[in-house]
Amino acid sequence: MKALYFDGQLALREVDAPRPGPGEALIRVTLAGICGTDREILKGYSSFRGILGHEFVGKVVECEEKKWVGKRVVGEINVSCGECDLCLWGLGRHCPKRTVMGIVNRDGAFAEFVALPVVNLHEVPASVPDEAAVFVEPVAAAAEIVEQIKPFTPATRVAVLGDGRLGILVGQVLRHVKARVTLVGKHGWKLALARSWGMRVVNRGDDKLEPASFNMVVEATGSPAGLEEALRLAAPRGTVVMKSTFGDKAQFDTSKLVVDEITLLGSRCGNFATALGLLSAGHVKVLPMITKTFPLEDGLAAFRFLDDPHCMKVLLAPGAKAE
Amino acid sequence: MKALYFDGQLALREVDAPRPGPGEALIRVTLAGICGTDREILKGYSSFRGILGHEFVGKVVECEEKKWVGKRVVGEINVSCGECDLCLWGLGRHCPKRTVMGIVNRDGAFAEFVALPVVNLHEVPASVPDEAAVFVEPVAAAAEIVEQIKPFTPATRVAVLGDGRLGILVGQVLRHVKARVTLVGKHGWKLALARSWGMRVVNRGDDKLEPASFNMVVEATGSPAGLEEALRLAAPRGTVVMKSTFGDKAQFDTSKLVVDEITLLGSRCGNFATALGLLSAGHVKVLPMITKTFPLEDGLAAFRFLDDPHCMKVLLAPGAKAE
Repeated sequence: MKALYFDGQLALREVDAPRPGPGEALIRVTLAGICGTDREILKGYSSFRGILGHEFVGKVVECEEKKWVGKRVVGEINVSCGECDLCLWGLGRHCPKRTVMGIVNRDGAFAEFVALPVVNLHEVPASVPDEAAVFVEPVAAAAEIVEQIKPFTPATRVAVLGDGRLGILVGQVLRHVKARVTLVGKHGWKLALARSWGMRVVNRGDDKLEPASFNMVVEATGSPAGLEEALRLAAPRGTVVMKSTFGDKAQFDTSKLVVDEITLLGSRCGNFATALGLLSAGHVKVLPMITKTFPLEDGLAAFRFLDDPHCMKVLLAPGAKAE
Repeated sequence: MKALYFDGQLALREVDAPRPGPGEALIRVTLAGICGTDREILKGYSSFRGILGHEFVGKVVECEEKKWVGKRVVGEINVSCGECDLCLWGLGRHCPKRTVMGIVNRDGAFAEFVALPVVNLHEVPASVPDEAAVFVEPVAAAAEIVEQIKPFTPATRVAVLGDGRLGILVGQVLRHVKARVTLVGKHGWKLALARSWGMRVVNRGDDKLEPASFNMVVEATGSPAGLEEALRLAAPRGTVVMKSTFGDKAQFDTSKLVVDEITLLGSRCGNFATALGLLSAGHVKVLPMITKTFPLEDGLAAFRFLDDPHCMKVLLAPGAKAE
């Protein structure tokens, strides 16, 4: 099968299709999404080698459990041991032995087929088209913030830093739980989209936001510099949520954190069932975020296209030429 | 009166005694403690100019509210406006207009007299001698961790980094709430003291602790390097508590924070009533931590003595020669 393989260099390769192990399903990938983390991996993040890709929707073509065959599915990306203390505490996404599809020691979904344990699969309801279902992983990651912070106070004043894909998804999820969201970005057209979805928007260049003026700040710029701005905006006893992963280290004034008793919260993968519900009900809108869909064969061009300032989300369609 | 004044240089000066404003009390300082923050101020932290000192016990000598006169008191160090949103939410310690005794725009207690609003005062119970009462401020700061993290799970495995005054007080408070505390330090005699108070102790040089082996790590080394070690030791979904304030910036790998969904919690001043209770009941022991008491006149020598590797806590006694 064809796959986008990374071994220090990203290339389209002809490789053997995965052979599903016990308890696993073989899935034909319909659509896959390129994520910021994929680009960080190309720069060296996580030292991954293999087939990239962890956002996908597909159809099960082979599985011991016959009921799965033919089902349209999305799949949780963390494959955990199921036996360690963390797994037994329900924290399998933090299993120290886990593999992570397309990120840690497990081939990903930028390929014609991908294999995953059936325990990782979620059937996609008919109300969610493929083009929306492919967003389940990042929508779940955005919704993780609300899962981590309980109780989540509706009146919370939130600033989301970054008008990229993640920032806009986070903004939508937080709007849905009635937070007052200010999205801080630098692209007029992305900010316009966010405004149309009920967010207050601020152009980073134009307006200087008041220091300590938000109860919560979500750092989704994908760069170390975002942290200092997030800390500047957070009110005493406020929370700064870090969403983006990157290779570089961040530098910051810990005394501000101590004196203002700020909580800095790392936040990663979330609950797929929650995300499917948000997409199914239309609480999070994703179709307008898709800029272009490339056939898998044009994957390298798709990665280059992400540099285009008018690009938001790029999808890969492994079957686009084959069908 | 005599006072230890800092204006870029620390010096013993003859200055006017403070004149208590409306609602304030004038207190004759019996004992005052030198804290790590005082030493950071000498290095430039907080840009403070004035009389240093924020740990003290004394006697009220003048006050409009006559019931306070003659009382033995300790005093909360944050003087807040009482009218802003944060004050009305009970977060006066975070009031943006606050002054902080000996740290921000308010003269401190390394003097014969200090003035403070009566709302800041706590009468010291007879069961707490002056030498223990002078520790109320740092004990309250240590106990703040337990106030911030609710529910505090008794089974929590905690590493406390740093065997200085703050680390040992934090360790004692956390032992009292039944946490399993490992104190990591580098001074045999301090570790021995901690061991005698029920803590497991580890010499930083000897033993290498397992990564991700603690639910909670308290950073009390007073140096930026402690943060990376704290993050290394914290388990997924664990909490790193930052206690120390210093001028330097810290550098760290935010991806570890995101991937492991670590909570980094800034923690500062705490509840004085809680601290008096802990001292009164003997749950936190402080008298063995006092290395030496200097007359206020020898304050400069007292600061120098803190560099002695056999020194733990140094007190100043403004009345030592005068009486």
